[in-house]
Amino acid sequence: MKSTLEILQAAKAAKASLSLLTTEKKNAALAAMASALIEATDDILAANAQDVEASREKLGEVMVDRLTLTPARIEGMAQGMCALIDLPDPVGRVIDSHVRADGLRIEKIGVPMGVVAIIYESRPNVTSDAAALSLKSGNVCVLRGGKEAYRSAHAIVTAMKTGLRSVGLDENLIQLIEDTTRESATALMEAVGYVDLLIPRGGAGLIRTCVERAKVPVIQTGTGICHVYVDASADADMALTVLENAKTSRPSVCNACEVCLVHKDIAAGFLPLLDERLATMRAESGKPTVTFRCDEASLSLIPHGTAAGEDDFDTEFLDYILAVRVVRSVDEAIAHIAAHSTGHSEAILSRDEGAIARFVGAVDSAAVYVNASTRFTDGGEFGLGCEMGISTQKLHARGPMGLCELTTYKYVIRGEGHVR
Amino acid sequence: MKSTLEILQAAKAAKASLSLLTTEKKNAALAAMASALIEATDDILAANAQDVEASREKLGEVMVDRLTLTPARIEGMAQGMCALIDLPDPVGRVIDSHVRADGLRIEKIGVPMGVVAIIYESRPNVTSDAAALSLKSGNVCVLRGGKEAYRSAHAIVTAMKTGLRSVGLDENLIQLIEDTTRESATALMEAVGYVDLLIPRGGAGLIRTCVERAKVPVIQTGTGICHVYVDASADADMALTVLENAKTSRPSVCNACEVCLVHKDIAAGFLPLLDERLATMRAESGKPTVTFRCDEASLSLIPHGTAAGEDDFDTEFLDYILAVRVVRSVDEAIAHIAAHSTGHSEAILSRDEGAIARFVGAVDSAAVYVNASTRFTDGGEFGLGCEMGISTQKLHARGPMGLCELTTYKYVIRGEGHVR
Repeated sequence: MKSTLEILQAAKAAKASLSLLTTEKKNAALAAMASALIEATDDILAANAQDVEASREKLGEVMVDRLTLTPARIEGMAQGMCALIDLPDPVGRVIDSHVRADGLRIEKIGVPMGVVAIIYESRPNVTSDAAALSLKSGNVCVLRGGKEAYRSAHAIVTAMKTGLRSVGLDENLIQLIEDTTRESATALMEAVGYVDLLIPRGGAGLIRTCVERAKVPVIQTGTGICHVYVDASADADMALTVLENAKTSRPSVCNACEVCLVHKDIAAGFLPLLDERLATMRAESGKPTVTFRCDEASLSLIPHGTAAGEDDFDTEFLDYILAVRVVRSVDEAIAHIAAHSTGHSEAILSRDEGAIARFVGAVDSAAVYVNASTRFTDGGEFGLGCEMGISTQKLHARGPMGLCELTTYKYVIRGEGHVR
Repeated sequence: MKSTLEILQAAKAAKASLSLLTTEKKNAALAAMASALIEATDDILAANAQDVEASREKLGEVMVDRLTLTPARIEGMAQGMCALIDLPDPVGRVIDSHVRADGLRIEKIGVPMGVVAIIYESRPNVTSDAAALSLKSGNVCVLRGGKEAYRSAHAIVTAMKTGLRSVGLDENLIQLIEDTTRESATALMEAVGYVDLLIPRGGAGLIRTCVERAKVPVIQTGTGICHVYVDASADADMALTVLENAKTSRPSVCNACEVCLVHKDIAAGFLPLLDERLATMRAESGKPTVTFRCDEASLSLIPHGTAAGEDDFDTEFLDYILAVRVVRSVDEAIAHIAAHSTGHSEAILSRDEGAIARFVGAVDSAAVYVNASTRFTDGGEFGLGCEMGISTQKLHARGPMGLCELTTYKYVIRGEGHVR
């Protein structure tokens, strides 16, 4: 087994070659990696079957589903890689440029971060998404997946390395950490001088540990306690449609709505309709029904509601559960969000331009929606191709992280002997 | 004395009001703060005299000079504030915008970080620069200056608060930490939920401590081991002029050159000229002379040189000292810089477009110069007004930090009931 330090040394040595590659060469590599992935379908499925078999008793059904690969899913991973080919190369882009009166030319140019490390869990598509995004953005990637998905990740990385070699590139541009114990995660967090950016993708515990312990730069991703505020002026039909979508279209993801705030002037009319739409009607059509965790004011208005517990407004349910609170004003909604949100995505449903402007100005989250579902916060939906995660911090990148968010910049200054 | 926690609570409470202010209001506040500073000149000078008196025996001459204020320096601080009035407001700027085929409009908008904390040492102008930059970029600032400059900082902040009140703004937008012990610095590093960005400005020890200990987002600033590489094709006269400027125009600052790398093909002709220019000629005209710390190959070519010690290529001299090494190629220069640089500023002096392209592409520092002095790496020189420091990290901001670098962004998405 290669040690984590050996792998980091190889990654660091590889980064100079990658940052100088042309766009054409990187795009050729992405196409070759995608082809190699398809060609290795049998090997990848066999490795994945071993992972699934070994994990079946330890993991719940949802986790086993996340881990399991099919030919269609592998095809989807290859398509995700190919989608990056058409996106502009963030390396070398001129972000800003000016010539001073004395003739000194100052340009601000996009450049790779260097070595990007990703600590993630069981979803095999993260392996290929992360490697492809890193390659196109000029970075070497160091992948540290979960133990339960190691065989799958290894088979996927083997295929991608075959792709790299087929176009004459260094296979060290993609590195898979072989040690899947806690030690290798800690080593990555402390790899000052080797890791230029660490991105944890996974549960709240992993992310908290990384943010607290890391000595290398980290971007916090993922946790989403997303709010939808239904203003007094909201169109009730639109509000029902948006809330049903935000809550039920995929409750297990971070951009699903967890909390509904309703203005007091519309609560008595609206909340019974919400109960009917998300509970009664869905039950009648055989869909999973939503249960409600209600504050005092909303409890009597929602037949299927139960009283909210102390933590219900601070919980990412990731389930068919919606916390509901009645507020007296848009400012009270804003204050509730400031106190309870994780800074991911929030929405206002309203026809009042004043309330909309106030909400959009004051809510300090990565994505603020007006009359739309929070479910759009996603790299693909935002036009970034696949994504490296959704940043919930403010430093460097916010919201879905695509190619540009994996780069930094440098100033290039050209003179003719200029001195100060 | 107000506790650090009380001050942080007041800062957090103030940030909502600041992020919603108009550009006009913020500019009026800057003008009022500058006037108030001038009007308080006598009070500030009196407070500063007490600081200087108390420190004279503890601090060296350079530090006392940094600490000492004069009417002209206070005037300069006021001018620095006024210079920000004409710069574009980074808050509300549309960074990116597109409308999807389904009509959903996605905009990426500049917004403040929130509360910006600065830990700094004795230079009183940092107090006014940091407060002014924070205000214009929509942030509340929390200032934690050094103990030896506390009376000066307090007098400056008192004047700025008078300016804020005179235009009807909350004086809590500018906060000065009253506790100047190590405890308050630690409290800021750990103020999760209160501090959105921490910027340490000062010695290497302070910066290292912040980077290692901080639980809040930090930007690393300042240390500059800057290199000038003299290529085989360099114009020798230009190289002498640029090196004299980069080394001697202000040796105590972070953008001064510390290391000169010279191509072997030009070394025998060039290095004796460098010695003549930086030592002999300067001595003859009564200027401070440069001493050289030489590698083996350069030692015999530089009459005033001494053999370099083990650390001389890893030291920020901040003095009239230049380390010199002969390299065999531009690639050896690049490799030396990769191994020894702090990522601040590096220059190539060359007439060979191939060597220039290689150097500019491969050197991974905040500023890369072609035929110009490293001394230009500065917020004022780059057109950013005054600066909050020079970032030597890659995450978020790189190089001089002005108004935009004190902001983040959010996505604002507008629909008409759009669901996914």
